[in-house]
Amino acid sequence: MNIAIVGFGNVGRAAYEAVQAAGDMTVACVVGSPRRAAPDYVKDIWVTGVENVHAHGKVDCALLCLPTRACPAAAETLLTMGVNTVDSYDIHESIWDVRCQLDSVAKQHGASAIVAAGWDPGSDSVVRALMQAIVPRGITYTNFGPGMSMGHSVAAKAIAGVANALSITLPTGAGVHRRMVYVELQPGATLEQVTRDLKADAYFAKDDTHVMQVDDIAALQDVGHGVQMTRKGASGAAHNQQLEFSMRINNPALTSQIMAACARACAKQAPGAYTMIEVPVANLLPGTLEGNVRGLV
Amino acid sequence: MNIAIVGFGNVGRAAYEAVQAAGDMTVACVVGSPRRAAPDYVKDIWVTGVENVHAHGKVDCALLCLPTRACPAAAETLLTMGVNTVDSYDIHESIWDVRCQLDSVAKQHGASAIVAAGWDPGSDSVVRALMQAIVPRGITYTNFGPGMSMGHSVAAKAIAGVANALSITLPTGAGVHRRMVYVELQPGATLEQVTRDLKADAYFAKDDTHVMQVDDIAALQDVGHGVQMTRKGASGAAHNQQLEFSMRINNPALTSQIMAACARACAKQAPGAYTMIEVPVANLLPGTLEGNVRGLV
Repeated sequence: MNIAIVGFGNVGRAAYEAVQAAGDMTVACVVGSPRRAAPDYVKDIWVTGVENVHAHGKVDCALLCLPTRACPAAAETLLTMGVNTVDSYDIHESIWDVRCQLDSVAKQHGASAIVAAGWDPGSDSVVRALMQAIVPRGITYTNFGPGMSMGHSVAAKAIAGVANALSITLPTGAGVHRRMVYVELQPGATLEQVTRDLKADAYFAKDDTHVMQVDDIAALQDVGHGVQMTRKGASGAAHNQQLEFSMRINNPALTSQIMAACARACAKQAPGAYTMIEVPVANLLPGTLEGNVRGLV
Repeated sequence: MNIAIVGFGNVGRAAYEAVQAAGDMTVACVVGSPRRAAPDYVKDIWVTGVENVHAHGKVDCALLCLPTRACPAAAETLLTMGVNTVDSYDIHESIWDVRCQLDSVAKQHGASAIVAAGWDPGSDSVVRALMQAIVPRGITYTNFGPGMSMGHSVAAKAIAGVANALSITLPTGAGVHRRMVYVELQPGATLEQVTRDLKADAYFAKDDTHVMQVDDIAALQDVGHGVQMTRKGASGAAHNQQLEFSMRINNPALTSQIMAACARACAKQAPGAYTMIEVPVANLLPGTLEGNVRGLV
């Protein structure tokens, strides 16, 4: 499979590595930002603009490693060109709408798309759906962290007086989270004012939020993250069924690896758009179905 | 959906409860053994012989709660009648062959079958395949227990001098297990001789096996079981990705609940036979796809 990496930030660079490490796919091109120079190691396959995706050979599937809100439009353009797409669109409440929008474009052009293909939404969604199916009554808690939240870090950076910020998500159990926000202040800003404004922001207002001043955000950077999902409930007449799934992972590496796996699913699914719970897990794997059933079932 | 419960042992009785608890299915009949009397609460829907499955109304799907080796033949008969089937066939090395055998029968008769639909093989297989897809290099360990192993208990009962037996599987880590075997002895048998013969049996020869004499096996009975699966490996260029899935569950209740969920998948899949890794998890759930994507993705 010839893969295009669209966007070359944390996730895009990790996607390049995931595709390089896979035996059944090749990076055909990197679609980079016109405002950035191509790093040396991808200079020969660098293009700008998704419409130029075939410049270095016909692309089968594009991994959209773009800011979430830029994904649906890029996917539409590529699907219209007949190129399969995988995105890790992560605004939970709009996933269904984006899936339906891309589904009709994909079907019109004989292509397929996997939407919301990361770890949450994504592989966690598969485990949540499986837990729900096998223990149908009960409560699932998804506990994130400890790890850096991109969305909350960006929201913290937007507060007046903040020069740079890093927001760590800490799980406190039962799906409730604490936010530890580290800030570099701009000259003249006070921690008191920044703390007050940040705690009033919609991103933080509902959570236990702690704001701390540091000299150098870069010294705190770590892309490790984690999740623990628990479900306790009843199967048939039997109560107290206890399930747990947890991960401690490099975030962009896992996200992009899942996207690469979904490129395989695109090649196997009928034209249309799908979330990961609509795709058989066997379709994410390299190798033959027989080999995978013999080895994994 | 009208469901037939085929076999009425531990799993069959639990399947009855799982179907009763589901809002979208009804027990149409129980196919019982001709050697056993029908329990009062299912007397009115009791039949013998899978060919009589439609005696109390047309059946959509049959849950085969039979000894593993009896499943393929019963599935063939039912699929030939156009009835979907779900089994929890659990001999790992023959699953692919059974799946292929049933696949052609199912396709010929416009029916569908889910094969090996329990928790291992079954839901664990889905998680194993997902772990493999998202962390492609590394090792997965499946650690079973503590809980009763049916297969090992039956093997222990077959040893000369054993009146009754119960074999508990204990995980000792990295996919290695210890067997704790409790035996009631027949008059004249010695624990020394039974221990020697049992440890030489193929079921036990490779594991650390402890044999203990008890007066009453029935006093030890508990259908609780568990599993812990771990995978540590690399996604792209990032090593030390750590994943874990664990359950502490009532074994027949979980097995039969998974079978009931797979009855839904049968209704949604194209004719053919499938293992659970070939089925989207969304197809296991009641409700609409939109509702499930909005609620679980």
